[in-house]
Amino acid sequence: MSKKYVYLFSEGKGTMKELLGGKGANLAEMVSLGLPVPQGFTVTTEACTKYYDDGEVINNDIQNEIMQFIDKLEGIAGKKFGDAQNPLLVSVRSGSRASMPGMMDTILNLGLNDAVVDAMATKSGNPRWAYDCYRRFIQMYSDVVMEVGKSYFEELIDEMKEKKGITEDLDLTADDLKKLAQEFKAEYKAKIGSDFPDDAKVQLMGAIKAVFRSWNNDRAVSYRRMYDIPGDWGTAVNVQEMVFGNLGDTSGTGVAFTRNPATGEKSLVGEFLMNAQGEDVVAGIRTPNNIEELKGIMPDVYDEFIKITQKLENHYRDMQDMEFTIEDKKLFMLQTRSGKRTAAAALKIACDLVDEGAISDKDAVMMIDPRQLDALLHPQFDAAALKAATPIGKALPASPGAATGKPAFTAAEAKKRADAGEKIILVRLETTPEDIEGMAAAQGILTARGGMTSHAAVVARQMGTCCVAGCGELRIDEKGQVFTIGGKQYGVNDWISLDGSTGNFYGEEIGTTEATIGGEFGRIMDWADKYRKLEVRTNADSPHDSREAIGFGAQGIGLTRTEHMFFEHDRIPAIREMICAETVEQREAALAKLEPMQQSDFEGIYEAMEGRPVTIRFLDPPLHEFLPTEEKDIEKLAKDTGKSLADIKGIITRLHEFNPMMGHRGCRLAVTYPEIAVMQTKAVIKAAINVKKKHPDWAITPEIMIPLICEVKEFVFLKNIVKKVADELIAAAGVNLKYLVGTMIEIPRACLTADAVASEAEFFSFGTNDLTQMTFGFSRDDAGGFLDEYYQKKIFESDPFARIDQTGVGKLMEMAVALGKKARPDIKLGICGEHGGDPSSVEFCHKLGLTYVSCSPFRVPIARLAAAQAALKD
Amino acid sequence: MSKKYVYLFSEGKGTMKELLGGKGANLAEMVSLGLPVPQGFTVTTEACTKYYDDGEVINNDIQNEIMQFIDKLEGIAGKKFGDAQNPLLVSVRSGSRASMPGMMDTILNLGLNDAVVDAMATKSGNPRWAYDCYRRFIQMYSDVVMEVGKSYFEELIDEMKEKKGITEDLDLTADDLKKLAQEFKAEYKAKIGSDFPDDAKVQLMGAIKAVFRSWNNDRAVSYRRMYDIPGDWGTAVNVQEMVFGNLGDTSGTGVAFTRNPATGEKSLVGEFLMNAQGEDVVAGIRTPNNIEELKGIMPDVYDEFIKITQKLENHYRDMQDMEFTIEDKKLFMLQTRSGKRTAAAALKIACDLVDEGAISDKDAVMMIDPRQLDALLHPQFDAAALKAATPIGKALPASPGAATGKPAFTAAEAKKRADAGEKIILVRLETTPEDIEGMAAAQGILTARGGMTSHAAVVARQMGTCCVAGCGELRIDEKGQVFTIGGKQYGVNDWISLDGSTGNFYGEEIGTTEATIGGEFGRIMDWADKYRKLEVRTNADSPHDSREAIGFGAQGIGLTRTEHMFFEHDRIPAIREMICAETVEQREAALAKLEPMQQSDFEGIYEAMEGRPVTIRFLDPPLHEFLPTEEKDIEKLAKDTGKSLADIKGIITRLHEFNPMMGHRGCRLAVTYPEIAVMQTKAVIKAAINVKKKHPDWAITPEIMIPLICEVKEFVFLKNIVKKVADELIAAAGVNLKYLVGTMIEIPRACLTADAVASEAEFFSFGTNDLTQMTFGFSRDDAGGFLDEYYQKKIFESDPFARIDQTGVGKLMEMAVALGKKARPDIKLGICGEHGGDPSSVEFCHKLGLTYVSCSPFRVPIARLAAAQAALKD
Repeated sequence: MSKKYVYLFSEGKGTMKELLGGKGANLAEMVSLGLPVPQGFTVTTEACTKYYDDGEVINNDIQNEIMQFIDKLEGIAGKKFGDAQNPLLVSVRSGSRASMPGMMDTILNLGLNDAVVDAMATKSGNPRWAYDCYRRFIQMYSDVVMEVGKSYFEELIDEMKEKKGITEDLDLTADDLKKLAQEFKAEYKAKIGSDFPDDAKVQLMGAIKAVFRSWNNDRAVSYRRMYDIPGDWGTAVNVQEMVFGNLGDTSGTGVAFTRNPATGEKSLVGEFLMNAQGEDVVAGIRTPNNIEELKGIMPDVYDEFIKITQKLENHYRDMQDMEFTIEDKKLFMLQTRSGKRTAAAALKIACDLVDEGAISDKDAVMMIDPRQLDALLHPQFDAAALKAATPIGKALPASPGAATGKPAFTAAEAKKRADAGEKIILVRLETTPEDIEGMAAAQGILTARGGMTSHAAVVARQMGTCCVAGCGELRIDEKGQVFTIGGKQYGVNDWISLDGSTGNFYGEEIGTTEATIGGEFGRIMDWADKYRKLEVRTNADSPHDSREAIGFGAQGIGLTRTEHMFFEHDRIPAIREMICAETVEQREAALAKLEPMQQSDFEGIYEAMEGRPVTIRFLDPPLHEFLPTEEKDIEKLAKDTGKSLADIKGIITRLHEFNPMMGHRGCRLAVTYPEIAVMQTKAVIKAAINVKKKHPDWAITPEIMIPLICEVKEFVFLKNIVKKVADELIAAAGVNLKYLVGTMIEIPRACLTADAVASEAEFFSFGTNDLTQMTFGFSRDDAGGFLDEYYQKKIFESDPFARIDQTGVGKLMEMAVALGKKARPDIKLGICGEHGGDPSSVEFCHKLGLTYVSCSPFRVPIARLAAAQAALKD
Repeated sequence: MSKKYVYLFSEGKGTMKELLGGKGANLAEMVSLGLPVPQGFTVTTEACTKYYDDGEVINNDIQNEIMQFIDKLEGIAGKKFGDAQNPLLVSVRSGSRASMPGMMDTILNLGLNDAVVDAMATKSGNPRWAYDCYRRFIQMYSDVVMEVGKSYFEELIDEMKEKKGITEDLDLTADDLKKLAQEFKAEYKAKIGSDFPDDAKVQLMGAIKAVFRSWNNDRAVSYRRMYDIPGDWGTAVNVQEMVFGNLGDTSGTGVAFTRNPATGEKSLVGEFLMNAQGEDVVAGIRTPNNIEELKGIMPDVYDEFIKITQKLENHYRDMQDMEFTIEDKKLFMLQTRSGKRTAAAALKIACDLVDEGAISDKDAVMMIDPRQLDALLHPQFDAAALKAATPIGKALPASPGAATGKPAFTAAEAKKRADAGEKIILVRLETTPEDIEGMAAAQGILTARGGMTSHAAVVARQMGTCCVAGCGELRIDEKGQVFTIGGKQYGVNDWISLDGSTGNFYGEEIGTTEATIGGEFGRIMDWADKYRKLEVRTNADSPHDSREAIGFGAQGIGLTRTEHMFFEHDRIPAIREMICAETVEQREAALAKLEPMQQSDFEGIYEAMEGRPVTIRFLDPPLHEFLPTEEKDIEKLAKDTGKSLADIKGIITRLHEFNPMMGHRGCRLAVTYPEIAVMQTKAVIKAAINVKKKHPDWAITPEIMIPLICEVKEFVFLKNIVKKVADELIAAAGVNLKYLVGTMIEIPRACLTADAVASEAEFFSFGTNDLTQMTFGFSRDDAGGFLDEYYQKKIFESDPFARIDQTGVGKLMEMAVALGKKARPDIKLGICGEHGGDPSSVEFCHKLGLTYVSCSPFRVPIARLAAAQAALKD
């Protein structure tokens, strides 16, 4: 039997979303519930896939099958497609497996032509309606199917209204609309070079093809990228008998939600317009009425609608978003789906549904999109103020939240002015590790260069600071302390505001509100913790971050980057002295200055973590990152170290690397200068001994993590150094302190040889940022230059730095897990790349059988929820 | 039964090299052949491995086993170890599986102490001999076992000679030597802090331990790295009863080869010294006599020796390198092994042995070290002139051969002066692609920066031009046109000479001779071709290189780098114009200028290759490599393109990348600018059509290779462009032209997803340079900064850029081959990284089942031989 590509609504059901798309499955479900739904059929998502496989052609078999269903529909409706006397008109709408509101295309009133419309006008006695339908159809078809664009037609309407001296579309007469329809057809011919198609079948196939095609339009592609929807799913097409909300004053159309999508409150929210078709409610040309008002206009219809909405919510056990049309006092349901909602609403609805006994706590956990929680964890703009503001620019939404303040152009200045009480936005070409203090002091960060994983973006997300990154149009004059955008200059006394969730920024002050987390948030998190298998740790470099992360539910630290501590102004001189050392003794002397500082950092972190596990990564970045770039800092370094300016510049030149990401960094530093590993081991262990003495009941077990291992011998060399130093210190202190020595797995070769590595390493932590870079062979700092083209050309569907590439990087991770467990069955496995906070990546980590994920403090709740969902899906 | 760690010579045989080492196995074999060999035993390589496993300790079991064999040796010799009256003295020598001449340590006369030596002096009536043995032993033991160093002892000898007014060691009397022995012991105590050990067992264990330890001394480690000898093999130790060549005028010692190791001529070559011990022949303090002279001194001994040498050569069927000692007119053989020989000698000996019926042609193929051939394929210094010259510096031997000429400090100057007939050495801080013409015009290249895989090194090897790279001591004053080294300046009128095989360079003119390839070379190559399974192709970018490679036996081109053509002075303006284009049209206009040039390049290559396969890689390097760096060139570009200087500098800044190796390059360029792929396809196909028309019988099948693929969709996007353009051109021309579209496999993800890639790509060519970089996570340009430490710390044993890392990179290649063949069973598989000319990597490619290897023209014969050896080993 050949495959069935078309289903009547009455043949489908709600569970067939994969095949029929969300809209098609829900229409079928509503039919089976006995609700008033105009009849129709669904062309499956498989037909869409076939269309692409066949080179963007709907093959004859499928065309024939569709026309057989048109015949069936004709039988059901008692009307004839393309017939002038008793015409069947249909709508053609997209509907994919996942809801993608507004991303794809819709065509209404299909089946009209000059003959049909004239007959319809006469027969209905409502010529205004008939010609209104016709001009709408020509307009939509031209726009959607032939891609002529809407504006030409809107201009024609405006010209007509101007000529007639009217302002409202509703004031156009039947004759006006008839004339417009003909003008539209002429416009179509002028643009396309052939007549507007009269044949209903041609119209239908064109429309279906357009819907299929719209699956790959730019906005659908970027929507899918944003929400991790695979590009090969395809969309279904729903062909449905038209019902008309524009038949006159006893007709109308509207949308409604069973609960408030902004707050989650249990009360119907909706809008409608009388004498209108669907797009009018959305288009904003007329102001729609509150759904309550329908009660006054048509009490019976209103009551019926209320009953249906309750039935649907009870049936789907979730807040529903519905479309309806009233055709001459008769109510028709055109769509129902789970309604999109704000994060706060999502939490409240889930908890309410549990309390109402409608769903279980598992269901509640499953129904929250973890990505949404992000919005609850950062300051937000005052909504009204934001609406009134106009962006002066847009770039990458690199770190969420909202910030308002005055520009500072260097980190030092940002720190100084912030210390003096000013609200500061740090504006930089790009940030470097030297800027760290200024970044911490600023409300938000705006950069001209760099992508979602640039230094500014990564650090800002870590700090929970709002960041808008990579605005190419920004011209920054650091010396003059101004930046220019859109021809306008902004200086140190001008307010600017950044929206880290959209990437918009504004040339004015916009009030912000601190996000508050209601009780529902905690309830959902508790339920999530009940079901998840993965531990959730955090990446934190300071006691402050550690405490914050515990507040968000972190169970330990998966990554402490020791180098972030080095950049602080009281340490940087010592690290620079270390870099400029010419002998081991000089280096050790400089390291000796750093050791007590590192030790006290670690003590602070252990104290904050109260016995939870703490993973400390040894020095990772290339040394040149610590060297000064400004002439005056270079001069100071020369003075501090007693070297000549030329010597210092020579050192800077020698440390220059062609590809620093793949240069002298990570464990390679400690292989070259083992004294660095010695110092760091001392700091880690001495700190643990001290805190252990104060809190003998805490299970302090430092996990020392060696970065960038590519070969087991490298690891053994460093492990031997660590163990020698650590064991001596522990023995001398006479405390019972355990510690682990493990490694980052972030180089392909470490995955390929993970059995050998695991025979020596007590834990693995996947560094998926670097692993992604090396597996794909592109640097995250440079990929911005071409990745957009890759998305546009559909070579990549999602950003591999945001979401683990399961096909490639994931394969290496699987190998590493399998080989690692073979060599050491009880090996601890974690992930500390930025992917640790991405829900789909968390799910992948769950499937891989990792012990924990680690992410920045602000993503901990997201990871907790995603981990629970992964476990519940199993 | 516990493992046996010690074997008497009479228990072993010649095939036990893995266990007994080469020296031990050959001693055993000589014993079994009935030759006069002093008795002894071998401590196995497994004992060495155990020593390292146990933490550099010889465990008690092994010590006991050794002492049991000392007992046996005492029985055989009728002497007693450590006994004053009838002492057994032994030599202790290393002997690993592969011959590593001079790399490890030897101790003679072990078993002596004050009591023994006095008794020996008395008993033998030859006190001078006795005390000579003693002072030698103390000296060697102190140096080798206790690492005191030789110089202190040599100073004491010199002081003694000075005091006595003599110049020859032989003029030292017994008393002098006795006194020296005591001075040596005092020196030992001063340095070590304890008395020189009297106990023979302590001496023996110390000596064995020292030999084990010497397996990991720096020179052994670097020798192994050079010759691909695994570090875990370990060395055996041979303990042998001493025979004495220093017993007086009827004693002596010498070395000999059965054939001339320099020329291969069939005639005994050797040297000896009367009244001497082994090290004297090598040390050069006395001038040894030609072996022929022994005939006059001791005709019987000479005749016996000649017979033995013939017997050994016949037995081993190879030229032998032997050591012997005459103790009071009695001949003892101390060692035999296959003799090291020059490349020319190796070829002649192999052919002669075949002609003599001693070996088969397969044996001949197997006995040549492919790496040696390199020396035959490049110009060499006149040997006498070289010997007389003193190097002024030493750096990396980056590309073999010899060159003499006068320095030029810019590529342009090099080209100009070379065109005027001068011999030029290009001296640069480092080279860039812009220097290509100057590099081609120079005799040799000397750089201050960069490693074995720097731009200079890679391009020089490709060109077959001598190159010495990365001389950090070199101070180059480009403006002043001088360089300084060792405090001396060299300018444009000073001769300098480079030895690309040693890395030495000289401040004088040294005559060079073009290498000639005798008939033996061809015979060996023909035999190799008979047995190998792998095709051998070449990497060639010009008709000249192509013809040269065919001369060396290349069967096709595995890699044509189209960008190398872009750097020529008549093309660079057009490529720069292309880069500066702001619209597709501007870019196409610039590309249109390049197209006929590329087409004519390809026509030339097809003509040169006469129908052999030609693989053409599309544009690979990041675009910024083509942009000027010198201010005046930037100004010229601004003028040429009609842009402002600021605009051009802006473009240069925008194209800057943090990690260009992982940036916007390879196929990413063509994804962003498909018009580049269109132009290159046109040039490739039009050229093929033209040449095909001229030579209809040639099987021209261009293989278009897309670089840097990480995802199959990337490949499909570009393949579709290529096929559309190519098929139209072929159809229009009406010729029957086939072409292939395939890809480089050089990114880990391409290996991991090779099944998907192979479903679209018609061939794979492993780009192992980049694959190695990304698998290890280090850039070859920067790894120089830390790789030395990795070798010293024995983390790496060989340079992964020279020899394929089979553990990591090889695993990815295996995956890619298996997945690729699964998806496309007849897929063509090649390699075009620099590893394609490395013998061990060629063997690995054979094992992987690749179709071909491709390497620079000068390495083609090496690859042919290595491929044959790999096939014969199967």
